[in-house]
Amino acid sequence: MRITNPHLKPGQKQVIIVGGGFGGVHAAKELANRDDLQVVLIDQRNYHLFQPLLYQVASAALNPSDIAVPIRGIFTKFQNISVHLGRVEKVNLKERTITGGSGEQLSYDYLILACGVRHSYFGKPAWENFAPGLKTLEQATEIRRRILSAFELAENEPDPAKQKALLTFVIVGAGPTGVELAGAIAEIATKVLVDDFRNIKPETATVLLLEMGPRALTMFAEDLSRQAAKDLKDLGVELRTGVKVDSIDEKGVVCGDTRIESPNVFWAAGVEADEISKSLGVELDRAGRIVIGPDLSIPGHPEVFVSGDLAHLEIDGKVMPGLAQFAIQTGKFAAKNIKFSMKSQPRKTFKYNDKGQMATIGKRKAVLQTKSIKMHGYFAWLAWLLVHLLSLVGFRNKMTVLTEWFWSYVFSKRGARLITQKEWRFGKDLGPTPTPLAAPAPLSVQPAAKA
Amino acid sequence: MRITNPHLKPGQKQVIIVGGGFGGVHAAKELANRDDLQVVLIDQRNYHLFQPLLYQVASAALNPSDIAVPIRGIFTKFQNISVHLGRVEKVNLKERTITGGSGEQLSYDYLILACGVRHSYFGKPAWENFAPGLKTLEQATEIRRRILSAFELAENEPDPAKQKALLTFVIVGAGPTGVELAGAIAEIATKVLVDDFRNIKPETATVLLLEMGPRALTMFAEDLSRQAAKDLKDLGVELRTGVKVDSIDEKGVVCGDTRIESPNVFWAAGVEADEISKSLGVELDRAGRIVIGPDLSIPGHPEVFVSGDLAHLEIDGKVMPGLAQFAIQTGKFAAKNIKFSMKSQPRKTFKYNDKGQMATIGKRKAVLQTKSIKMHGYFAWLAWLLVHLLSLVGFRNKMTVLTEWFWSYVFSKRGARLITQKEWRFGKDLGPTPTPLAAPAPLSVQPAAKA
Repeated sequence: MRITNPHLKPGQKQVIIVGGGFGGVHAAKELANRDDLQVVLIDQRNYHLFQPLLYQVASAALNPSDIAVPIRGIFTKFQNISVHLGRVEKVNLKERTITGGSGEQLSYDYLILACGVRHSYFGKPAWENFAPGLKTLEQATEIRRRILSAFELAENEPDPAKQKALLTFVIVGAGPTGVELAGAIAEIATKVLVDDFRNIKPETATVLLLEMGPRALTMFAEDLSRQAAKDLKDLGVELRTGVKVDSIDEKGVVCGDTRIESPNVFWAAGVEADEISKSLGVELDRAGRIVIGPDLSIPGHPEVFVSGDLAHLEIDGKVMPGLAQFAIQTGKFAAKNIKFSMKSQPRKTFKYNDKGQMATIGKRKAVLQTKSIKMHGYFAWLAWLLVHLLSLVGFRNKMTVLTEWFWSYVFSKRGARLITQKEWRFGKDLGPTPTPLAAPAPLSVQPAAKA
Repeated sequence: MRITNPHLKPGQKQVIIVGGGFGGVHAAKELANRDDLQVVLIDQRNYHLFQPLLYQVASAALNPSDIAVPIRGIFTKFQNISVHLGRVEKVNLKERTITGGSGEQLSYDYLILACGVRHSYFGKPAWENFAPGLKTLEQATEIRRRILSAFELAENEPDPAKQKALLTFVIVGAGPTGVELAGAIAEIATKVLVDDFRNIKPETATVLLLEMGPRALTMFAEDLSRQAAKDLKDLGVELRTGVKVDSIDEKGVVCGDTRIESPNVFWAAGVEADEISKSLGVELDRAGRIVIGPDLSIPGHPEVFVSGDLAHLEIDGKVMPGLAQFAIQTGKFAAKNIKFSMKSQPRKTFKYNDKGQMATIGKRKAVLQTKSIKMHGYFAWLAWLLVHLLSLVGFRNKMTVLTEWFWSYVFSKRGARLITQKEWRFGKDLGPTPTPLAAPAPLSVQPAAKA
């Protein structure tokens, strides 16, 4: 079933954007209010997610809706933009159609692929059961559930060894996400939950950050990386570098000769492209990302652009990073090149405006690096705060996040400390889901074990 | 396995409170900071839920964490109170023990049962699949998911009949919850989502409120009930009284000769007691609630009290209502009677201080009734606002709810318009859960059907 957009007027071109993340939303905005284009933006979620703050949802500091806005709401006023909730299964480059979940096809004149990446478990997909990653809101609330449940289960656990395991948290991968999550968990243990338990001391929890490479935050300069390691140590995070994870099961992690007992393992290492890339039959890199040319289009397919994490773009021999800034800039630029083509003007070559990168470590520290600045400590953290607040889409989100942060900064409390269920079970909505990791807590009052 | 609380000092009595709702939390607060008592508060959730505002989570106005606070956080400072996450399976009145999910037993000297009620489907538990109720946070986010998904699916639906069904919302039961939910859904359709869609007009949605009795809000005076019906009509809600639901399936509702096509049915009719009451072997009412005496204890068991929705208490021949006020007052009073018994003083007889009741209808109307006042309209709504805001536990929740309400009042937008998944699927975290009610939306751009 092939469909033509009924809103399409004679002479108008059809642009399809797949993905409502940074790249897709900025591309659509760039194409808003034009008479010669109809834009259809397709996403499988109804919201645009501000991924850089996802770890704060996972660590109970923010609410899901603080970092997500309905995509429809962004484009209410732009009549040439329609938003569709659905999944694009494949792209037929030859026929210039995309195929949806029910087999229906929609034609395009221009296509922007901006559907990002997901976690990769180095060929061990089973690990995902035991070590969820942090790319979606559901994963974030699942990680939050696991962190908070671990303390509750430890409070009720009579066996000291099991209690110690429950109070051990392992984060695999010391990139920005891993560093930020580890810092946040350490703060939950040492500041947020302190005094709330009677049988355990949350501040005795162990937070391990495992990194295969020689240091944390490898994309930063070495001295900043060293500083971050020091800040992590001060927070109580134990960073272990040069450590390869050999296996993960529901009770722990094995790295070489060492077994770490912990049901609380989180994954922040490695990504791979959305499956859609495989349907194209074009050149992909090892992670499945689509290799694109200097105008951001796929070589041989000037009508198809790729933006953000899904793109493999080399500039001066350097592969561009999977950062929000890159997604925003490529999204806008692809849209601009479409406009040049509409006017039969030559396209331009994308240049990356490197605005730098930052990572926060706990509540008062961060590292920040641009072409000309290297910073760490409190002022870097303030800069981190400001940049993230200003980048949040929508005045409302800025306001609520500011309120939450202020609250959490002043009182060291977390606003979203809820253990919600993994699933809503019909007829059984009155109990926590029994899983090996969060079995109904044994109902007992135990003497505090010596940790 | 019988356990004695290791924190229990010689001469101290053990109080167990089952349930961290209004009754349980207020009972525990009343017993805080006493040297002669150790209190264990057990709940299967880690949070205290402000149930009167649950419909606002279901209608995307508030976040789950706006109306929930961690129970532990309430009692951090009170060393004689421990909070336990777990489910109490049964009570042995003769041996004075409770039994937890793993078979372990804990003895009590005094017991307060405050574990509330759940929805009852009049002996048709299968209906719950098609018509979720509104008692828990998970149910609220599930209802939110269904409401928002219905509009998304309607936008993509080519068949006008199916589209009309998707844009039909049915609420069964016109008590306060049903009235409030119906009003909120009508506002979503007519104010929040307006202009966000291209193929449908959300404001053409039908909101049906079905009531078996002769009028809405039967517990209010007749003139207020009439006023509420008028306010509902103004909002676009169609109230049908004297209607008995004969069956519910995934595609609609049958009432006598009428079939209403709608996959969006929500249940706000009838409750039954928590299952624990059946394990007691004492007198229960038809809904399974425990019949208690004037001091709030179970006849023949002066050491066991019942508080809130779970209690069946008659005063002057009138059965007490399942309101937050009743739960708070009985929770406190049961605790006070325990203190009298500790001092070997005679117990007192519970008197209900009727502070009245209220229900809100949309964003600017409410009905309010106390012994001396009957009010409706804007000022009743302001009173509703004030009472609910002041009753919210914790300064932080007051602040964030006030912010959300202000936002929503001024801009007619909703802060929590997120369709989150029913479950987090390992290895498949990138798509909406396929269920008959929210199958992956067909990816198509359809001409707007005439509704």
